[in-house]
Amino acid sequence: MEQKKLKLVDLAKLAGVSTSTASRALNNNPVIKQATRDHVQQLAKQHNFTLNTAASRLRLQKTKVIAVVINLEANTEQSIDDPFLLKVVSDINQAVNRQGYELLLSNSYMAGDDWYGYFIDGRRADGLIVVGQGKQQNRIEQAANLGAPLVVWGDPKTPSNYPIVGSDNYLGGLQATAHLIARGASKLLFLGDPGHAEIGERYRGFKAAIDGASEACQQQTVKIDITSQAAYEAINQLLRSEGLTFDGIFACSDMVALGALKALKERYVSVPNDVRLVGFDDIGMADVSHPSLSTVRQNTQLAAKMLVTKLLAQLNNEVVDSQEIDIELLCRQSS
Amino acid sequence: MEQKKLKLVDLAKLAGVSTSTASRALNNNPVIKQATRDHVQQLAKQHNFTLNTAASRLRLQKTKVIAVVINLEANTEQSIDDPFLLKVVSDINQAVNRQGYELLLSNSYMAGDDWYGYFIDGRRADGLIVVGQGKQQNRIEQAANLGAPLVVWGDPKTPSNYPIVGSDNYLGGLQATAHLIARGASKLLFLGDPGHAEIGERYRGFKAAIDGASEACQQQTVKIDITSQAAYEAINQLLRSEGLTFDGIFACSDMVALGALKALKERYVSVPNDVRLVGFDDIGMADVSHPSLSTVRQNTQLAAKMLVTKLLAQLNNEVVDSQEIDIELLCRQSS
Repeated sequence: MEQKKLKLVDLAKLAGVSTSTASRALNNNPVIKQATRDHVQQLAKQHNFTLNTAASRLRLQKTKVIAVVINLEANTEQSIDDPFLLKVVSDINQAVNRQGYELLLSNSYMAGDDWYGYFIDGRRADGLIVVGQGKQQNRIEQAANLGAPLVVWGDPKTPSNYPIVGSDNYLGGLQATAHLIARGASKLLFLGDPGHAEIGERYRGFKAAIDGASEACQQQTVKIDITSQAAYEAINQLLRSEGLTFDGIFACSDMVALGALKALKERYVSVPNDVRLVGFDDIGMADVSHPSLSTVRQNTQLAAKMLVTKLLAQLNNEVVDSQEIDIELLCRQSS
Repeated sequence: MEQKKLKLVDLAKLAGVSTSTASRALNNNPVIKQATRDHVQQLAKQHNFTLNTAASRLRLQKTKVIAVVINLEANTEQSIDDPFLLKVVSDINQAVNRQGYELLLSNSYMAGDDWYGYFIDGRRADGLIVVGQGKQQNRIEQAANLGAPLVVWGDPKTPSNYPIVGSDNYLGGLQATAHLIARGASKLLFLGDPGHAEIGERYRGFKAAIDGASEACQQQTVKIDITSQAAYEAINQLLRSEGLTFDGIFACSDMVALGALKALKERYVSVPNDVRLVGFDDIGMADVSHPSLSTVRQNTQLAAKMLVTKLLAQLNNEVVDSQEIDIELLCRQSS
């Protein structure tokens, strides 16, 4: 151990495998082929590499903390005071507490680019729950590759090297849009940014419902940030410049739907008579708004439980998969 | 340092002062009289006491984490998924991040009885923000006495040995009730539990407004937990057993008000024609509900900023006071 210390990443390079494979091989994880395990372990011996460095030993002292990383993109995006994000965080907090852990509430600004170094090596937490894939998954991938115990709330259909728990966004978009069409809407508007992983799936469902409709439908997409304010401004702008060019809106979230609703009410466009409206999430406000908001309910309580279970399984060196959670279309007054 | 180590609490006893005074005296804090500082420091020398024990040295390594302790009483109480609590936590989180700290979300169940030992000695956090005084302040007092850097979101009028930041709850209750009376209500109902510090102040304001009214008013109090469900059940029960014995409700929170509103609507009692209703907090749902809910707005963003500023000042050994935040009565459709 007197020589210059070989890092895990160097050992992985020597072995021609990823760092996560190297780490798992050293830990004798059965998910890695025996031949690879032998190969990596032999190289480790040759180079006097051992996982029991000071850092590793330190890591054995558990923090009993799970970090929740809110993955925000920029100032214009959905922020932590968004009611749906708060609901997710609150449900995760309860699930985490139930397992005897506490929650460190962090976000992509605080944590910088190296999440493994910041949270795991820095002993801030034993594992990470990332809320939201956002538009870029680089930092999540890197942390997972370095061996950070990690689960993501996002779109479980995304191919990934880490487990994702999330709603069946495609089916949600499909059911919401088919419902709008069944209620008589034929000029459909998608309100949201399909570049975002989960919203992209909702958009695919929206398109599929229109393609599958018995009558021909028009469609348009208004690409906006996931905020009530952005929706309010976009619908106002659209009504001003082009008039009422739509009779059904599928909004990518309830907050977006409520922003659209406000703009429509101010211009005396009746919901649901002139425009039928469906949101996504089922936040508390959806039920109390007037008209009450039809929406696609995400079961955040079940999802939170899954996220925590899958994270704790990783802390026990188990390998876990992504998982899709059922959604439910709730038809209220707005459609 | 070979002899049995004297603890801070023993030294304080010897000096005849509180542990927090002893700690401050040893740190040469100017808030403590020079004579007391000299006395404590001399005793410390005599008994070979030094603050630079291993624990203290360890404490010098800052965690850059602030713990937010949700002070819950029992299962029946307001829980962490309450929208107002979430708003407070979210505002504190943003204020904490802005100062380069992260937030450890904890609660009175996780932390047990010895908050100083759990958070500060256990190096989970550099300081505590306690949300809610609840009905008992023992654990807060004890943690403060032991020298935990600590601020409380609660009722700033409560006499305490720790700084409290909170709304002018008395004035809020007074203005809300005076407004109900001005709109014609004369049979007033207070919905909430006055045994709770902040709600007690709102109740004092409610009584004061009735006492100060030019016309005689009836009053009754329905003591319930701070949840929508409890309010829904209580109003249902009251209407069933006694009929409509009130024409104005001051609810101790918006969630309580929304629960009452639901019960009233289901029994075809018109709000505001039959019953005028005012809540407290101004959560997002207050504005979107139908009818929209009149309420007393708490400026949680400003309060969060104050809480964090006052906590960081304590980390710099400054002494800080309680502070009251202005409230604002928002008159919407429900009154």
